Amino acid sequence: MTTTARLAGGLACPAPAVPTERVLLGHGSGGKLSAALLRDRFLPHLSNPALQQLGDAAVVQVFDGDIAMSTDTFVVSPIEFPGGNIGSLAVHGTLNDVAMMGAEPKFLSAGFVIEEGFELDVLDRVIASMAGAAREAGVPLVTGDTKVVERGKADRIYINTTGIGTLEGTCRPRPDRAQNGDAVIVSGEIGRHGMAIMAAREGLGFEAEIESDSAALYPLVARLAGRFGAHVHVLRDPTRGGVASALNEIATASRRGLVLDEESLPVPEPVAAACAVLGLDPLYVANEGIMVVMLPDRFADDAVAALRGLPLGAQARRIGRVVDDHPGMVVMRTAMGGTRVVDMLPGDQLPRIC
Amino acid sequence: MTTTARLAGGLACPAPAVPTERVLLGHGSGGKLSAALLRDRFLPHLSNPALQQLGDAAVVQVFDGDIAMSTDTFVVSPIEFPGGNIGSLAVHGTLNDVAMMGAEPKFLSAGFVIEEGFELDVLDRVIASMAGAAREAGVPLVTGDTKVVERGKADRIYINTTGIGTLEGTCRPRPDRAQNGDAVIVSGEIGRHGMAIMAAREGLGFEAEIESDSAALYPLVARLAGRFGAHVHVLRDPTRGGVASALNEIATASRRGLVLDEESLPVPEPVAAACAVLGLDPLYVANEGIMVVMLPDRFADDAVAALRGLPLGAQARRIGRVVDDHPGMVVMRTAMGGTRVVDMLPGDQLPRIC
Repeated sequence: MTTTARLAGGLACPAPAVPTERVLLGHGSGGKLSAALLRDRFLPHLSNPALQQLGDAAVVQVFDGDIAMSTDTFVVSPIEFPGGNIGSLAVHGTLNDVAMMGAEPKFLSAGFVIEEGFELDVLDRVIASMAGAAREAGVPLVTGDTKVVERGKADRIYINTTGIGTLEGTCRPRPDRAQNGDAVIVSGEIGRHGMAIMAAREGLGFEAEIESDSAALYPLVARLAGRFGAHVHVLRDPTRGGVASALNEIATASRRGLVLDEESLPVPEPVAAACAVLGLDPLYVANEGIMVVMLPDRFADDAVAALRGLPLGAQARRIGRVVDDHPGMVVMRTAMGGTRVVDMLPGDQLPRIC
Repeated sequence: MTTTARLAGGLACPAPAVPTERVLLGHGSGGKLSAALLRDRFLPHLSNPALQQLGDAAVVQVFDGDIAMSTDTFVVSPIEFPGGNIGSLAVHGTLNDVAMMGAEPKFLSAGFVIEEGFELDVLDRVIASMAGAAREAGVPLVTGDTKVVERGKADRIYINTTGIGTLEGTCRPRPDRAQNGDAVIVSGEIGRHGMAIMAAREGLGFEAEIESDSAALYPLVARLAGRFGAHVHVLRDPTRGGVASALNEIATASRRGLVLDEESLPVPEPVAAACAVLGLDPLYVANEGIMVVMLPDRFADDAVAALRGLPLGAQARRIGRVVDDHPGMVVMRTAMGGTRVVDMLPGDQLPRIC
């Protein structure tokens, strides 16, 4: 059916069809558009109690124990970067999503989409890197699948990893468990992964200075879970969309406000410099080897000390607190003494960062 | 370093550089090249007892029970076809890989790679179809991930699904458990999925006649497991590469020979006709809703009857037997009274069929 519209001059012509709605790059950003896509397109069809938790992984029951399950597809470009490659990243990313549920990662699967013509020696490096990351974490990759698509139907290689882990003890962190008075802690410096990718992608010349922080976080989780158990209210790895997006998600899920102290944010000097050059805010830059922790203020110093007892947590520090004011909103106390809202980005700051 | 070669005419010219080894479309075919890629590129790095089983899924232990885990990425083109779309296919395919271990599928994850510009109404249809397939199978999709890549870096949509299932009872089919004297049974007619895709892809005009057989096989598995338990030696869904490739894998894994009876092969008339037009052998055409069963001959009639008791198994029949002769080889007794070897294809007969 064609409808017609009459122009001012009186000529009848076909009205422009309502444009077909299409996927935008921003739909994959982890920002507002991503949230809308999930809410409007996926959940209406697929809703169930486990999926609706919308955590980094699902917690499901098998036999007499709970297990956590998480999946992630990695499409990072370039596939090799200082500090890792798409293989190690695919292992760390999914292991961390499982660990953020308080679960001990146990098994991984891997699904590959490879572009025809991809160099086998690069594939070897990617798989060796996956294997090394899995071995180091003590988590075997137990099943896999490989598909090859024609040249121009993928960008070299995409890797899906799915992980399952077991939940024991009392630590069951969830984004909606943030409580008034909780301290907000980060386990390390922010912005390294995203800036390492940007540098490698754009050939900005500061590659040598910034390495991705890609790493498996479970050892830090195990330490916190062992010492603080159910007091660990929230764990979250701030990947796509950075610390700002992760904190906004937590504020929304818990209906609390978050107050950050700008001067306490651990931004490494090279990341700050590169962000300044590119006009980026390190709070929105992806990380792959740090986590945000929320637990009652009285445990905060001990928690920071516990994290600092492991090399991966050496730069851990308190960066803010949870309040009952301004629920759903993240606010920053600036170094100048003012405050500003730290909003969620509508779409991509940096596409294909993981 | 450049080496030189001397032509007959005496002119020195650079020899062609040794070509960089690259991935070929055939590496994704499920044939010999796929097996070589797995053997030469993946297993050297990633080997562990669960992965080395090389079944459709891994069996791993959690708490006091075994679970099966399987992953598959779906890159089928076109994404919509008679009998389903990439969404229902992604659910059925992974559920079936879990079921082929004798496990009851319990949970699914889904990871999407979407091309920028993909129509949201098509996405809706795909997700609705996934949801319907998951609901019908009684298996919830519990966690997911979405990545969007730039236009031209994917072909509309790719979907990874990973499934886990629980193993109870005594049914533990494995490709290497085929025994001399076992009957070879198929649960339904062969070649529908692949020919439905080919017809939709090439616009061959016989689309209306051939629908994909895409379906969840666990109800058939449950029936066999309940009646025959540990006597069910092998279950395999013959997807990429078709019945011929699945049987070759089983012959290799079990070091047995297989003898097929050509006249017993259930090839639907429209599939046979389309294969004749295209010069394809239905034995190599992908299926997504049938399985191959091997169990001792004395149970074969009962097993066929049990399968026929469910609509999905109405066309079940015995197609051959396992022998100790010609280990690793599949042989067909032809309708003319001769025999021929049914080999594995080196690469793709039909790329991107699932």
